[in-house]
Amino acid sequence: VPPNRFRQAVEAHNLDLMRDALREDVVFRSPVVFGPYEGRDAALHLLGIVAELFEDFRYLDETTDGAGNVSLHFVTRVGEREIEGIDHLALDDEGRVRELTVFLRPLRAVTEFAQLMAERLGVAS
Amino acid sequence: VPPNRFRQAVEAHNLDLMRDALREDVVFRSPVVFGPYEGRDAALHLLGIVAELFEDFRYLDETTDGAGNVSLHFVTRVGEREIEGIDHLALDDEGRVRELTVFLRPLRAVTEFAQLMAERLGVAS
Repeated sequence: VPPNRFRQAVEAHNLDLMRDALREDVVFRSPVVFGPYEGRDAALHLLGIVAELFEDFRYLDETTDGAGNVSLHFVTRVGEREIEGIDHLALDDEGRVRELTVFLRPLRAVTEFAQLMAERLGVAS
Repeated sequence: VPPNRFRQAVEAHNLDLMRDALREDVVFRSPVVFGPYEGRDAALHLLGIVAELFEDFRYLDETTDGAGNVSLHFVTRVGEREIEGIDHLALDDEGRVRELTVFLRPLRAVTEFAQLMAERLGVAS
């Protein structure tokens, strides 16, 4: 299995590596909002904010179907709350992320996370 | 890759197959509640209710790490709302589920799902 560039960028806390790991036309689906965010700039902006909110982040396991789908299972913390999640990636032939979908649990922690995201994005929650 | 017994049980809507797919000491983590539910009976009870709430359920992709971790990516609908999710499984050597963790998005649909679950479980939400 070749190294996962998205995972490497996350683990290195490196937004330049993240830029290289994402296609310019990447589609990002957040755990909170229904509709997708389109394009690398939008995704990088959101991932940068998420990186500030998530503490003690680590991946637990990485699964793949050999056809470009990858799920990265993680645990982290937002404030006092533990959060568990999945980064689901659809990769292109070069290993760049075409689609990134993030899932979080449990509900109360996600609700708090959504509020913090909304504050940082400057929108009403 | 051997067929996934949990997935087969879900797709067959068959709770007897599901019983066989779960270890007696399975740990179930819901998308809503922080704490785990322990044991097959608790898991089957909850999965039975979920099966009644989810409509037009289908798996999109299945990923594995070859060491017992599997992520099953699905879409479904609860009432008018589309939901996307991951069933994350930790399997034992016989392919039975040791741990099942369910993730859902987006937040508004999860909130409605949680309310419907609470009504059916007869608890205050």
